[in-house]
Amino acid sequence: MKTAITPTRAENYPEWYQQVIKKADLAETSAVHGCMIIKPWGYAIWENIQQELDRRIKETGHENLYFPMFIPLSYIEKEAEHVLGFAKECAVVTHRRLIQNREGKLIPASPLKEPLVIRPTSEAIVGTTFANWIHSYRDLPLLTNQWANIVRWEMRPRLFLRTTEFLWQEGHTAHISEKEARDETLKMLNMYADFAENFLAMPVIKGRKTENEKFPGAVDTYSIEAMMQDGKALQAGTSHFLGQKFAKAFQIKYVNLKGKQEYVWTTSWGVTTRLIGGLVMTHSDDNGLVLPPSLAPIQVVIVPVIHKFKNPQTIYNYCEKLAESIKGENYNNKPIRVKIDFTDDSPGNKAWYWVKKGVPIRLEIGPKEYKTNNVYLSRRDKNGKISVPHKKFIDTLVMQLTEIQRNLLKTAKKFVKQNSTEITNKKDFYKHFTTEKSGFVYAYWREDDAIERQIKQDLNVTVRCLPLVKQKFAGKCIFTGDKGGRLVVFAKAY
Amino acid sequence: MKTAITPTRAENYPEWYQQVIKKADLAETSAVHGCMIIKPWGYAIWENIQQELDRRIKETGHENLYFPMFIPLSYIEKEAEHVLGFAKECAVVTHRRLIQNREGKLIPASPLKEPLVIRPTSEAIVGTTFANWIHSYRDLPLLTNQWANIVRWEMRPRLFLRTTEFLWQEGHTAHISEKEARDETLKMLNMYADFAENFLAMPVIKGRKTENEKFPGAVDTYSIEAMMQDGKALQAGTSHFLGQKFAKAFQIKYVNLKGKQEYVWTTSWGVTTRLIGGLVMTHSDDNGLVLPPSLAPIQVVIVPVIHKFKNPQTIYNYCEKLAESIKGENYNNKPIRVKIDFTDDSPGNKAWYWVKKGVPIRLEIGPKEYKTNNVYLSRRDKNGKISVPHKKFIDTLVMQLTEIQRNLLKTAKKFVKQNSTEITNKKDFYKHFTTEKSGFVYAYWREDDAIERQIKQDLNVTVRCLPLVKQKFAGKCIFTGDKGGRLVVFAKAY
Repeated sequence: MKTAITPTRAENYPEWYQQVIKKADLAETSAVHGCMIIKPWGYAIWENIQQELDRRIKETGHENLYFPMFIPLSYIEKEAEHVLGFAKECAVVTHRRLIQNREGKLIPASPLKEPLVIRPTSEAIVGTTFANWIHSYRDLPLLTNQWANIVRWEMRPRLFLRTTEFLWQEGHTAHISEKEARDETLKMLNMYADFAENFLAMPVIKGRKTENEKFPGAVDTYSIEAMMQDGKALQAGTSHFLGQKFAKAFQIKYVNLKGKQEYVWTTSWGVTTRLIGGLVMTHSDDNGLVLPPSLAPIQVVIVPVIHKFKNPQTIYNYCEKLAESIKGENYNNKPIRVKIDFTDDSPGNKAWYWVKKGVPIRLEIGPKEYKTNNVYLSRRDKNGKISVPHKKFIDTLVMQLTEIQRNLLKTAKKFVKQNSTEITNKKDFYKHFTTEKSGFVYAYWREDDAIERQIKQDLNVTVRCLPLVKQKFAGKCIFTGDKGGRLVVFAKAY
Repeated sequence: MKTAITPTRAENYPEWYQQVIKKADLAETSAVHGCMIIKPWGYAIWENIQQELDRRIKETGHENLYFPMFIPLSYIEKEAEHVLGFAKECAVVTHRRLIQNREGKLIPASPLKEPLVIRPTSEAIVGTTFANWIHSYRDLPLLTNQWANIVRWEMRPRLFLRTTEFLWQEGHTAHISEKEARDETLKMLNMYADFAENFLAMPVIKGRKTENEKFPGAVDTYSIEAMMQDGKALQAGTSHFLGQKFAKAFQIKYVNLKGKQEYVWTTSWGVTTRLIGGLVMTHSDDNGLVLPPSLAPIQVVIVPVIHKFKNPQTIYNYCEKLAESIKGENYNNKPIRVKIDFTDDSPGNKAWYWVKKGVPIRLEIGPKEYKTNNVYLSRRDKNGKISVPHKKFIDTLVMQLTEIQRNLLKTAKKFVKQNSTEITNKKDFYKHFTTEKSGFVYAYWREDDAIERQIKQDLNVTVRCLPLVKQKFAGKCIFTGDKGGRLVVFAKAY
């Protein structure tokens, strides 16, 4: 059977990914190194992600604000691990003016006394600011968030997954006690996991990162890890317990109830436009993008089929009436998003256009539907079309969207389950990771930097996380036989 | 009478402005040159501005997207006037890495082959992209918008009004004909004017800029000009008809119905976080910020007055019930935003806190209110407090917010009227602009670069615009006596 996307997932997964994005018109690479242009369909998905996340962030008591994107070198230097972690990928502003040289070419002029780094993350500027804002225990907890663009110079960029500039949300909080900061770190991790499962329909594992994979400067980093359809893991969000490291580096202190100065405890957490890459690789198929209804910019598309019909206006009128009744229904507390495709392309081309864009429900309306007061319905999550009476369609619409959302999560969960294995010895481990779709491997392992580097080198496999659930008892490390092993998830990763 | 803000407007207007921002906790300067930190109260106002503008931008058929913030020098060079207009204020990225030197200090490393400018505006990257996207007349009109951060190096920064980094929205469109592009330019100018008057309660004059004051690279620039309480003008938004200048510079062409290649016609338009500065200086008074209800992050604040009262919980319960009934009311199609101030400060301090933050309606609830089922009401737009029965307050709440919104616009309009003068000769013109609150001066003038520079030098006065209304006939230029004068607005400006 011919597919809308060439190559298929089985033929060439990385190229399939690029083609799904291209055919759905989500984004494109720009001539600026590693930077993408997020096109309207991709940006509308991002806006839906933002809106829902922003609601959840505010609901948990955080306030949005905005910090400058420039960070003086002297700030970023203050936390030693932090700066070393980002030094290799920092874009640096050194001049504040352009002048024309003798040949009329533009060249940078007016060098800055102190070069500025474009934020690779904002802990340094936030730390400096929090130190000014926090004086007493009354100022705590300080719960903030910002939506911003970030720059980390990327040598091997891939649309959404790794780009030099990307968009994200970064939470920054300060607390009175270690417990409160640790609770916050996990609360936001849980929020991300719930959001991923129930909004993106993307199942994730919550876990703690190894020392090697921690955020530079964190005491503990937690992440949510999703599985893509090629069996690779995607780190889809992180939440960091920063302890008092940044508090000490930036002198963020408060006066406690007894009048004594103490350092605060801080956290940070973020998700990025990378989520869109995860979304693409979780649900899409060989016919293109598949979108969960929750975040589809259009949830129902109506395609008028006026081929050879003498009176197209009657069909258009029927479509308009249909659209009105669809908009009258609420899904996720918002009117259902519907569009009529009035373009003059052929019905077949129009149908495929919307398949590739991932719209959950498509209705084809021709003379027959008009005469019988029916709709001809296709769902993006399954094959086949059926004829349904207009009224019945409206009555069951919310249920259908709910079902599509649930089906996508169910299918994705099944895939994760099918591609997760428990392994109990090194030989099987090495053998397993030479198979094609290796997925997640659960195994007992005692944290060890040398082993981590070895399997990375041999198999390109990393420890994704120490999952928070399933940690009932210690086990025998599959590499060393040491009895102090913890259950961890290994995988190849993006 | 003691005022909450020192100095008052009359004593020292610029310092009053800084103090209003400080006391309302809207924003603060950062240690990064010219960059501000937008604090939660300021950012919440920006979010309300964004939400309403975004709705209007989408309603007029524009789609949001996102372009990279880096612009290669070779792009920005393509339109000669454009690059000259921005060269003096461009932040330039020249390196992509940091390394430690022998003393352990961080220094920029890995110089870029081609330096990158941080967008001072996006015409160059948009032009390059549109040239790839547009092929045929079917691709037109192309109606896009982005929300982004912008950098223009600012030598004399002022919070919100002039900052090195600021936030904005920039629309970019391409059209098939000059008429269509001109219509778009004016449509968006009108949208901005309507938004300013009916959402910000800030009256504006719509007009065309002189050649001197045009956007670099535009054929025509239009602006909305507001009047601040010191009589100075604030350019609050601009809409540019770019003709075919950028189309030719970036080779944005399409094939028309006859199969012939043509250049498109483009426009761009934007408003920035500067609007918040305008808002502050339009409505605020010597007691601090005054916010129109439409964009107040909190529209009603409830202050429990539990001083010496034995059973505070009954008061709190009464406040909670009150808050619930307030949230049940809709203003501008959204539930009214209400907050109970549970902090343990004195009632007086709490009241002044919310006065300085500009909250439109304040309710003080003490034992008396609790016992009589009343609320003790203060409105930020007028003096005095009154006792109102709970039910009557709820029944009239939407009307009261509507009235406050209308009053603020009315007061601002009256101020503009009182501070606008028509002047018919040069002598009066010079005399007038040596008075303190000089406001807007309407006068006939024949566009002339030399005169423009002269009055700028002599009086620090500029032509704000050639207003679109009132242009019924030509008049005698007050400087030259030439009969081909047009009615223009002169003012000192931010």
